[in-house]
Amino acid sequence: MRDLAQSQVAIVGLGLMGGSLGGALKDRCGQVVGVARRAESIDQALARDLIGRGTSDLAAGVGEADIVVLATPVRVILQQLTEIGPLLKAGCLVMDLGSTKCEIVDRMEGLPQRIEPLGAHPMCGKEVAGIAAAEITLYEGCTFVLTPLQRTSQEAVDLGRQLVQAVGGRPLILDAERHDQLVGAVSHLPYIVSCALVAAAAEAAAADPLVWQLAASGYRDASRLAASDVTMMLDILLTNRDAVLEAVSTCEEQLEELARMLREGDEQGLRAALSAVRESRVAWERGRSSATGEAGREDSSPRRE
Amino acid sequence: MRDLAQSQVAIVGLGLMGGSLGGALKDRCGQVVGVARRAESIDQALARDLIGRGTSDLAAGVGEADIVVLATPVRVILQQLTEIGPLLKAGCLVMDLGSTKCEIVDRMEGLPQRIEPLGAHPMCGKEVAGIAAAEITLYEGCTFVLTPLQRTSQEAVDLGRQLVQAVGGRPLILDAERHDQLVGAVSHLPYIVSCALVAAAAEAAAADPLVWQLAASGYRDASRLAASDVTMMLDILLTNRDAVLEAVSTCEEQLEELARMLREGDEQGLRAALSAVRESRVAWERGRSSATGEAGREDSSPRRE
Repeated sequence: MRDLAQSQVAIVGLGLMGGSLGGALKDRCGQVVGVARRAESIDQALARDLIGRGTSDLAAGVGEADIVVLATPVRVILQQLTEIGPLLKAGCLVMDLGSTKCEIVDRMEGLPQRIEPLGAHPMCGKEVAGIAAAEITLYEGCTFVLTPLQRTSQEAVDLGRQLVQAVGGRPLILDAERHDQLVGAVSHLPYIVSCALVAAAAEAAAADPLVWQLAASGYRDASRLAASDVTMMLDILLTNRDAVLEAVSTCEEQLEELARMLREGDEQGLRAALSAVRESRVAWERGRSSATGEAGREDSSPRRE
Repeated sequence: MRDLAQSQVAIVGLGLMGGSLGGALKDRCGQVVGVARRAESIDQALARDLIGRGTSDLAAGVGEADIVVLATPVRVILQQLTEIGPLLKAGCLVMDLGSTKCEIVDRMEGLPQRIEPLGAHPMCGKEVAGIAAAEITLYEGCTFVLTPLQRTSQEAVDLGRQLVQAVGGRPLILDAERHDQLVGAVSHLPYIVSCALVAAAAEAAAADPLVWQLAASGYRDASRLAASDVTMMLDILLTNRDAVLEAVSTCEEQLEELARMLREGDEQGLRAALSAVRESRVAWERGRSSATGEAGREDSSPRRE
């Protein structure tokens, strides 16, 4: 297996994640080949110097690659994993950037034995989808989960780790099931809760449209995830159904418990619960700031309104 | 009734909101007097030039004021409204900055007839409480709700409007009940939902502490409000109980409906619901950006992770 510096890396899917990865890797590996269906994406990636060359032909794009990274929505990754095996050379490392891992890792089991599979999920991202939003610093400082299979060689895991470190990420080896459970609670739950919040505000606005004029920074922050790309999120929810539903159910219980205390005027209980929650949130932010050097960032704190 | 430019304004409570108001008003009115219990707050307000003079004696602070602004937590405002009447000169305009309005406006009815009461609520704010966080630009561009009483004279409303405009806010006259209903849905609901989200994540973390390491920008945004000051939020929830509980109930129904579609694998229904939510959120952001000139602000969009 080659070192990253000598490897040809093919990135399949030139959106926010794929484009950013290309730009971050380009000077740290042998060559970056971008594969995308749409010619404009390739043109834009070339113009922005995010890839060395591009093609819309999957076979031509991945045929000589030492590392292939699938950077498409989860269910497209699942489909590509059924097709890509015969196109790859022996010893090729196949990674992906999908936000759920169990189904992907299952599907990776079906790759020919001469291929090295390695699931991956970088815990970063940005607003809008698409290559226009790509940034070569996107992965800097982010936790980058790697989910090796039983069959994945140590050499392959090491190469994946090299790739993660080359783009500034912090590799974290996890098994797929544990990963999906965790992101269900801390990434997919916030999305679906934000959606419920927006739906509730929209219902209030149907009765009184002035709602939107009074919505301020609190609503903005709490509802931000609801503007995420629907196709991407639908793939995520549908491939992590059990963990998401479990997290939703926990959250519903917590919400109902807060509502109960409010209904009953249990001020002491409410104060204790809200204080515990506040401490948890403040401690997390503090730990995060010290881990990533983000202390004092302007957008890192709650707002009163 | 004097013009704002000739008025002495007493601000009771020198925290984030009071301190910021003082600084924004100081060169646009006759004099700003700051009233706070703690000497450090007064010292800091003077040092930062947010007030002209300061006192910890309520009677001395408000006795000569043409305008008094109560900038304390809601239930402190309620208490102060029962005590302050005899201390004020005839024709004094009494405002507040509390986040709920029905109980405050009710309490204002008890002020002597020679006083002019006017409820107010600026829809802005910032992270941490306290005068250290005060900024003279805090009110710029924010919707600033005014809730006059039946007895409030047009002259008094106009003076309140002058004050709002002097600090850069956009006055919006509303009745107290409608205000409380609206902020229940779009300000207090986001807070309590953020708290439930943090509580759910904490429950997941009790089983697997790695949760916190995987929490990224999505969790950060969706949970930000949960770090708000507990005493302030408790006052808000307890003085807007019915509207908050109604909003929570709507939100629970929406969340359960999304969960149901996910449970049943109703992809078409889920896609339709998430798309409608996304459109609502994007349209709101767009309207907001064009209204406040915030288009392109770096922190104004959702994140993918």
